[in-house]
Amino acid sequence: MKKIGIGLIGFGTIGAGVARLLLERKKLLSERAGFIPELISVCDCDLKRPRPVSLPAGILTRETKNVLENPRVQIVLELIGGIEPAGSFLLKALQNGKSVVTANKALLAEKGDCLFSAAEQSGCHLGFEASVGGSIPIVKTLKESFIANNITSLYGILNGTTNFILTRMVEDRLSLANALKIAQDAGFAERDPSLDLSGNDSSHKLSVLATLITGKFFPAAAIPTEGISGITAKDLDYAAELGYGVKLLSILKFGQNGLSLATYPALIPNRHILSSVRDVYNAIFLTGDLVGESLLFGKGAGMDPTASSVISDIISIGNNILCGAKPLPFSITPGKKLQLQTDFKSRYYFRFSALDQPGVLARIAEILGKYNISIASCIQKEEKPQKAVPVVVLTHTAKESAVKAAISAIDRLAAIKSKTILLRLAFDE
Amino acid sequence: MKKIGIGLIGFGTIGAGVARLLLERKKLLSERAGFIPELISVCDCDLKRPRPVSLPAGILTRETKNVLENPRVQIVLELIGGIEPAGSFLLKALQNGKSVVTANKALLAEKGDCLFSAAEQSGCHLGFEASVGGSIPIVKTLKESFIANNITSLYGILNGTTNFILTRMVEDRLSLANALKIAQDAGFAERDPSLDLSGNDSSHKLSVLATLITGKFFPAAAIPTEGISGITAKDLDYAAELGYGVKLLSILKFGQNGLSLATYPALIPNRHILSSVRDVYNAIFLTGDLVGESLLFGKGAGMDPTASSVISDIISIGNNILCGAKPLPFSITPGKKLQLQTDFKSRYYFRFSALDQPGVLARIAEILGKYNISIASCIQKEEKPQKAVPVVVLTHTAKESAVKAAISAIDRLAAIKSKTILLRLAFDE
Repeated sequence: MKKIGIGLIGFGTIGAGVARLLLERKKLLSERAGFIPELISVCDCDLKRPRPVSLPAGILTRETKNVLENPRVQIVLELIGGIEPAGSFLLKALQNGKSVVTANKALLAEKGDCLFSAAEQSGCHLGFEASVGGSIPIVKTLKESFIANNITSLYGILNGTTNFILTRMVEDRLSLANALKIAQDAGFAERDPSLDLSGNDSSHKLSVLATLITGKFFPAAAIPTEGISGITAKDLDYAAELGYGVKLLSILKFGQNGLSLATYPALIPNRHILSSVRDVYNAIFLTGDLVGESLLFGKGAGMDPTASSVISDIISIGNNILCGAKPLPFSITPGKKLQLQTDFKSRYYFRFSALDQPGVLARIAEILGKYNISIASCIQKEEKPQKAVPVVVLTHTAKESAVKAAISAIDRLAAIKSKTILLRLAFDE
Repeated sequence: MKKIGIGLIGFGTIGAGVARLLLERKKLLSERAGFIPELISVCDCDLKRPRPVSLPAGILTRETKNVLENPRVQIVLELIGGIEPAGSFLLKALQNGKSVVTANKALLAEKGDCLFSAAEQSGCHLGFEASVGGSIPIVKTLKESFIANNITSLYGILNGTTNFILTRMVEDRLSLANALKIAQDAGFAERDPSLDLSGNDSSHKLSVLATLITGKFFPAAAIPTEGISGITAKDLDYAAELGYGVKLLSILKFGQNGLSLATYPALIPNRHILSSVRDVYNAIFLTGDLVGESLLFGKGAGMDPTASSVISDIISIGNNILCGAKPLPFSITPGKKLQLQTDFKSRYYFRFSALDQPGVLARIAEILGKYNISIASCIQKEEKPQKAVPVVVLTHTAKESAVKAAISAIDRLAAIKSKTILLRLAFDE
């Protein structure tokens, strides 16, 4: 049976998971793949830390050249994360004629243009299944299974930490801070949770998906991104009362005026399947012009789920190397208008903090009307004369630009006591 | 750019959909695939019927040899359905050194052993993505994306017609007969709906998945199968009251005593994601030892969704042919104990029709107790002295064999006025 040499850079959690599978499931993988994926060299700056796998003697090294310049290594796995030196390692591997596999969404979302074109020029393969949705086979599905489709929209829950926090806030009636603490104690959230809470991690993944779907590079920095830090248990209660769950969504949509990309927390009707995605799970709901509505759901992170996707890339690429197959052309929807849309329409949820005085609601409604924003429903329950109380409004479809202007005007009213909370609705237009 | 010649047998709904895509999306498919999939010959016994695609002159034929013996045809699509002559055509194509693509689950579920081994002997590819779950990429996901996993269980909603009927019965409060009529009028159900209602179509698909997962052929005839004909709106109401939805599930599970396979209607807790799968959608919920719980959801039938999967097979196989890659070994979990389990454990729902007389419930409970079946909850609402009323019982986990014996004893009681309805619970053990 033929062999494919694998070199690994980054012997952390995911790297150790991949190394363990390559060693402990060598026989199983060889039988299924038709070749032997052989771990040749593992590079990390920390040679001492205990890991859940013991490597054969002599393959652990601190020298990247033992991977990047090793003639026996045909596929390089980059599992260190971060922008540099990860990016340079990947480029070097491609320049040396080695195919690469990475789980690094931050890198792809910042330097994807340069990496994808380096891969194309080298004629080598660049696998990145593990960079989005952990175990979820979204890259293979888009590139291969849905190859005949034009994708018209995609809505992803792409960050398990924030989905866990939102789920615990609703189901255990916790504040965001307390739910975050539970996530941190359980190891789902980092000590510094800002990359997750800000929505930036989700936008990294949306960047990868947008590039894959459109064949044009959209860096994460170009994607309007809002996180969940402003969401309170109260908003989740109001949403539930109105028949909605709240999820941090990353959205790609082709509209009349071009492509829109965004990450923000959104209200989703209870009976939509995405509102059933709980805890740390990720899901991607997408529409293709042939397949119609589809959903892929699974674990978005973790050693084994992520390692499973890395191995899947190794086997696909290994078989392609062995038979001399070139990578599939990357651009999967050529000819689309690719103007990034700066304005869009949606339905909205507002929570105003308004003094409970006569005429306040009338004043809010008047400003909304002036901007052509029509109210679909309204909740005002508490009565505390002379104190600010929450007034919740759901609108019909309105323009984002008009909404921003209206809210800015409303927030200047004397009776409005704090910044209005603004959320968008999805699947209910 | 290189070409791959395609021959199509069966120019019905799906065949016409595939032909249309091959012709109308030729440029798009070629750009994405890296080769030109060229439709060479289309064979059908009906040359006259109008179809939603016009073929180039001279390629439509009544002679199968124009496909099966045409040296320019490298991939044969079998889209006629049924066991014969479809099976003979596929074998002939493989014997002639042509790869094949089929959507024919009934054929694979009856003759899979002979077809899969013929493909293996020929060294040709056999694509069958479209045979299960229409647009859902379950075959590629199992064979490629989850290649490093051992699959431990699978729960599929594999028949859109019955899922539509169950959804309409609950949401529109219809009888099964009325919901079926709506499905027939909308074109979701056949004039003779027995293949769907009986659960046999679902078991055909489960057979294909079981063979794929275990590497051993399990014909549909070996799978215990119950359909939805016995389900009443009343049962769905009781299930809802108890916090469950009812779905027709096809189940594969590895247990201590071997593999169990079955299709039956089951109660699923409302918050499980499978209970959000509504109307004609299909979904497959599976657990792998690395990926954990995963779900694939999409349209299970229809011209475009099915054609999308057929095209995906064509492109994968075409690329393999062009680079000379052999098919991946078929068996994907060798070494498993593959005894089919004849008994298993579950929780149960019973609806007894019992005379509303003193002592009846005690008598039922006594018999259940004798068979070690413990009652978890019970609903008896209506009071109609001297008439039979429904008594609904949910049990704790019990053995199927004990339950069958107990129900048989209970159904012989004088106070039991019709055959007891028995449903199983899923995801709540």
